[in-house]
Formats: sequence, structure tokens, C-alpha cells
Amino acid sequence: MPRYAYVNGRYVAHGEAAVHIEDRGFQFADGVYEVVTVHAGKLVDEEGHLRRLDRSLRELQMPWPMSERALRLVMRQLIAKNGIGDGIVYLQITRGQAPRDFKYPKGVSPTLVMTTRFMNLDPVEQLNHGVKVITIPDIRWKRRDIKSVALLPQAMGKQKAAEAGAFEAWQVDDEGFITEGCSSNAWIVTDEGVLVTRHASNDILNGITRQSLIRLAESAGIPFEERAFSVAEAHAAREAFLSSATTYVTPITQIDEHKVGEGVPGALAGKLREAYLSYARSEGAS
Amino acid sequence: MPRYAYVNGRYVAHGEAAVHIEDRGFQFADGVYEVVTVHAGKLVDEEGHLRRLDRSLRELQMPWPMSERALRLVMRQLIAKNGIGDGIVYLQITRGQAPRDFKYPKGVSPTLVMTTRFMNLDPVEQLNHGVKVITIPDIRWKRRDIKSVALLPQAMGKQKAAEAGAFEAWQVDDEGFITEGCSSNAWIVTDEGVLVTRHASNDILNGITRQSLIRLAESAGIPFEERAFSVAEAHAAREAFLSSATTYVTPITQIDEHKVGEGVPGALAGKLREAYLSYARSEGAS
Repeated sequence: MPRYAYVNGRYVAHGEAAVHIEDRGFQFADGVYEVVTVHAGKLVDEEGHLRRLDRSLRELQMPWPMSERALRLVMRQLIAKNGIGDGIVYLQITRGQAPRDFKYPKGVSPTLVMTTRFMNLDPVEQLNHGVKVITIPDIRWKRRDIKSVALLPQAMGKQKAAEAGAFEAWQVDDEGFITEGCSSNAWIVTDEGVLVTRHASNDILNGITRQSLIRLAESAGIPFEERAFSVAEAHAAREAFLSSATTYVTPITQIDEHKVGEGVPGALAGKLREAYLSYARSEGAS
Repeated sequence: MPRYAYVNGRYVAHGEAAVHIEDRGFQFADGVYEVVTVHAGKLVDEEGHLRRLDRSLRELQMPWPMSERALRLVMRQLIAKNGIGDGIVYLQITRGQAPRDFKYPKGVSPTLVMTTRFMNLDPVEQLNHGVKVITIPDIRWKRRDIKSVALLPQAMGKQKAAEAGAFEAWQVDDEGFITEGCSSNAWIVTDEGVLVTRHASNDILNGITRQSLIRLAESAGIPFEERAFSVAEAHAAREAFLSSATTYVTPITQIDEHKVGEGVPGALAGKLREAYLSYARSEGAS
């Protein structure tokens, strides 16, 4: 457990970091969050995360809790205080504390909490053997583009995955197309070698790692299509992988009861992971 | 502000009532709640609320935080400590505090918090003139039958209502049928005098006041249909009203830009409110 957390202007012992029971994050899921990877002490894709945070806040008519510059500073101070080399910063902003009433309260200061965690960013077992995913119905709300803390359906989905011995659950829309994982974006490589991931819309969260991977794939001249793909297409894919801030690119070797390709991590996934790691160490780091 | 809140086994000063920032209610909306009306110091429809609470917990594989008997006692003690005559008890149960990870943690105790509030259960202005509702798209998840704290879409809807000078927003499904309000059930009376409210399913929360009203309407021999109704049908209705634990039966005199009936509270709504009040004072009180 890290030593310090940040709560509304103070660095406090992690075990004592608390919010009021009438915080709107607790009573209404009225808040947003970001998870930023720390690699060798540096933030990865910080710009992308802050731009998305700003968008989530605007969509919910929620103000920044402090200037962007101050927020960047707090992230760095917390990383330093907790001595994080490889790990993550988790930051959450809620509309603040107010007597319980659905509509947005007036004159309330937003709540800002921040934690860090050490994390092994190079999980050898997962990378050597790949992970399993299952498919489940997507039961979420219609504004999945907002990175809100209303994460109950995702928690239910991840629990289903865990009970099935899987790493992640890919959610499937009413038309049979995969939207995304519960905490990661979904990718396949078709038999023709085309890289495919679902287009950004209200149906998915536009992952920051996802966006960087698209840029890297295009730079590398990899054939790429941004479109919905079906469960059947995923089952028949040559490769599959997932992406997120904390897992980078993680190969998938089983989807439901179907072995992906030869049942070993795919070459393109490996290539993209290397490209992302290289990027995360250089121009993506700050 | 009431003096005391209840948090995990202790009665604490309301201003100091807090949960950890890694409570799953705060980070994942992984919790459920109930609001029980207190009328003249007695709980209204307590049985119904506890049965629904039990169902919500089971659907989320969440244990009770204490025995049902103990929970009933805590509600009464908090009401007494805070001297509540007319008002509400708000109780929230979350999966508890654990290092952030989507899937359900093991060996964690649930969090139980409880607050009370004084409330005027007889708001003369609303009852004499009726309230306005607007219609908005229903963007919520597909398990609206679970009374979870993942209430962000409802908060957004209530905010839209407030900005439109309305009391409530009725949510409309993809087929143009009204599901329910953001914190209340929706009812109309057709031109033929038939009382209509949407049937219980995963599409709505099955209100406890709603269920009591159905029983009372049937006892009174009021023609009743439990079915979906469209926005057009609502606009053309003779009467409309909403129901919830705190508003009982509240007449609606305007839906969007349409005056309901003659633009005054309806007779049937008034009759049902009286019947519910009478019930809440006698066999519905405990």
C-alpha cells in the first residue's frame, strides 16, 4: 500500500484518505477519473489523459478542481512522495459534497483525490502465453465516451471474466458487434493481416493508449481499419489483443472457447507492444 | 443538517461521516441504496424497501452488512437520535473498501451508511398546482431493476429538468415509450379513465410506492393497465402523475409543452394520494 494519497489539497496517509458520505461520487457516481501509467518515474501519454479528462468534465458541466498546471504538479509530487518508478497514478474528480439531491448543486467545490500504485508493467506470464477473454452482453449506458465512475456494469463484467478464468470480458452490442473490454479496448488482426479496432463513438471509451497505437500502426504502414467487428470475426481472427494504459498491448490467445490463431501471442501484437514501449520511453514520456 | 449519521457500526457527527477513497461505492458505483419515508416517526412501506434491498444485494452478489433485524434497529435509532418526525432515512450499502480492481474483492466487509433528513411530505404548492415534467432519451444501463448508486444518468436528467424549469424528467426508450422518471415512476390516466403505468421489468425500477399504489387502485376498483405508454399518449392523457417514496403521488399538469387535461391536478391522482396517505398512516406504517 502506498504511503500517501492526495485528497482536496492535502497529502494524507493512505489509510486515512476519506471523502464525506454525501460526496456525489459516493451517492451518484457523479465523477470522472483517469489512470496514467508511470514508467521509470515518468508519466506516459499525460497530454492525452488530460485532454480526455477535460472532455469528460465538460460533458458533465463539471469544473476543474484546480488549474491543469497545478494538477500536473500534484501528480508529480505524489509520484515522488510514494517513490513510484513503474506504476500508475489514479485520479478522480467528483462534483463535490452536497446534501443529497439528483440535480447538480450550486456553489460546491469539486472533490479531487489521487492515489498511486506500484505495478509490474512487464508481466512475463501474460506476455509469453497471452490471456483469455470471454464475450458478454454490453449492458452499459449510452455515454461510454465519458470516463465516469459509474462503473458497476464493468465491475460485474470483470467479475464474470474472473469466474470464467479469463483476464477480461469483451462486451457485445445488440447487433452482435464487440464494443470493448470492461477496462480495455479490443483489437483483432484479420486473416488478411488487417488490424481492426472499433471506431470511436458514444459506444466506447476512446482509449489514450488506443489512440497512440493507431498513430504508431499508421506510421509503421500496418493495414488498419477503424470499424465494428463481430464476435464471429473475433473468433476467426488471426490475432487478438487488448490495450489500456496499464496493460499497454496484451496478446489474447483464447476468446470464449476459441483458440486465437495458433493459440500463441501474435506477431503484430508483439510488434505494436514494442513500438508502444519505445514511444512510452521517449516522446510519450513527460 | 441532521446531527448524526451512521457509518459502519458507529453513530457519528454528520459533518464527519466519511468513507475511504477506495470504497467501491466511490470508485465503481458498486453499491445499492434505499430511501424510506418517515411519517409521524414511523417507517412507511419498510417491508417493501427491505425486500427490494435484499433483491438488489443478491443481484450483485453482495452480502447484507448486518442482520435484517439489526438494520431495522439502526434505522429506528437514527430516526430517534435525529428527532425525525416527517422525513426520510437514506441507507446505502457498498461492497466495501479494497485496493482498486474491477472484479469483486474477497474477504471484504460491506460498507453501510445511513442518514436522515427532515422533509415536508405535504408540499402545498406542488399539490395545488401540479408539477411540470419534460421527456428525455433514456440513456441508462439495462439493469434498471437494481437500485444501484450508478445514478449519473439520472443526475444528468434531473439537471436537464431543473434547467427547463421542470420537477422531473420522464425517460423515453428507443421505441418512444416512457420508462419512468429519474427518481420516480410515471403514471397516466387515459381519456377513457384507465390508470396506466409501465410494467415491471429490467427497464424500470419497481417502485415500492408504485407497488402499493397498484394494490390500492385494484382494491378501489379503478380500471388499471400495467403496460408501456408512448410520449404521444402521455401528451394526450387526461391526467398524469408521478410516484416515489418521498413524493407519494404528485400530480403533473404539464408534460413538455403540453398541458395535461385541463391543466389542473387530476381527480384520480388526488384520490390515490389520499388512499396512499391513509395506508401510510395505518397498515403501511411500522
